[in-house]
Amino acid sequence: MTTDTKRAVVLLSGGLDSATTLALAKNDGYACYCLSLDYGQRHRVELEAAAQVARALGAAEHRVLALDLAAFGGSALTDIQIHVPTEASAGIPITYVPARNTILLSLALAWSEVLGARDIFIGANAVDYSGYPDCRPEYIAAFEQLANLATKAGVEGARFRVRAPLIDLSKAEIIRRGAALGVDYALTLSCYQADAAGRACGLCDSCRLRKKGFDEAGYPDPTPYR
Amino acid sequence: MTTDTKRAVVLLSGGLDSATTLALAKNDGYACYCLSLDYGQRHRVELEAAAQVARALGAAEHRVLALDLAAFGGSALTDIQIHVPTEASAGIPITYVPARNTILLSLALAWSEVLGARDIFIGANAVDYSGYPDCRPEYIAAFEQLANLATKAGVEGARFRVRAPLIDLSKAEIIRRGAALGVDYALTLSCYQADAAGRACGLCDSCRLRKKGFDEAGYPDPTPYR
Repeated sequence: MTTDTKRAVVLLSGGLDSATTLALAKNDGYACYCLSLDYGQRHRVELEAAAQVARALGAAEHRVLALDLAAFGGSALTDIQIHVPTEASAGIPITYVPARNTILLSLALAWSEVLGARDIFIGANAVDYSGYPDCRPEYIAAFEQLANLATKAGVEGARFRVRAPLIDLSKAEIIRRGAALGVDYALTLSCYQADAAGRACGLCDSCRLRKKGFDEAGYPDPTPYR
Repeated sequence: MTTDTKRAVVLLSGGLDSATTLALAKNDGYACYCLSLDYGQRHRVELEAAAQVARALGAAEHRVLALDLAAFGGSALTDIQIHVPTEASAGIPITYVPARNTILLSLALAWSEVLGARDIFIGANAVDYSGYPDCRPEYIAAFEQLANLATKAGVEGARFRVRAPLIDLSKAEIIRRGAALGVDYALTLSCYQADAAGRACGLCDSCRLRKKGFDEAGYPDPTPYR
């Protein structure tokens, strides 16, 4: 990386969407500073996937911040007493983690400001998704507006952009774009209740959307199921 | 507390402003769930002040979350290599912590949603303040708008309110209001570089604004200076 390379912060969960987002950011010429959150998630093994993806795709840096959202609970992903649904449900499912993307984007904003980065990439998607409110385009636009009011850099004239390049793509389209850029989806982990070896349940919302994506894209699904 | 008491999340740093905000929220009849952040701040002793203030003012609960913002640095409050200024400076001072209020409000939003609270109190002030961008009324309004887009509760019709009751008060007015509600300011700690015993420097921005406030309010300053 030369000192002229423009920097971006990329939120990286270790899943299919964020891996593709990283590949797109890298392809746009950014030096990518990847941020993951160890927040007490049930599928904490995704953090190992995130580290592998960051390495494979040539991230400039990968940081994992710890923040115990399980102390708040209120989600099947942070409270092991709450069962992860294995069938589609009406409305926003119990796997919704209160304010998660707002917390993630605020941390990305903090790091961006320190790095002198102006672009924040997030793998939010509003097509083949679980209906989470903080994945919708109007939410992303509102956070971008906030970012410019919230920061010293914004007040001084910089313009932060929150980039969600997957927002209106189907899962199949996401997979096709990523595959064209050399993403190895075998490294990614999407399952909400993956076991310690990273094997997926095949039944949760996230597994079902992923499976459907590989089917529709006509790619072999590399996911290890248990 | 009866189950009918409406709940609020109150961001509590341990300083004068957030203590007054808690007293105002309590006086408005809220059961107050206080949230503090152990973020690697230089003046970490403020967390002990926060605990004492929460107890003295009858908070329903006080939680301290840990999140290492010092890993990002970029502020005199999180990087001990950067000197805390002891004279007023032009522009936004180096004590600004990138995206701090956005991080704090996003955590408060997460807890609020789980608690079923709809009101988030923050002691932001835009009169006798350091010029931080994330203390301005337009910032607070933008976060409130975001909160309602970001959350399941918001989508389902709830309305979160971000309440900054001090936003247009002078420091002297804040002190008068708090004193009238029985706030013991001797428990609060404002100094950016207080020592481990909680003694203030008397020189930093925060100390100077506090001193001026007690002078103008005509109250004896209870701050222990070193």
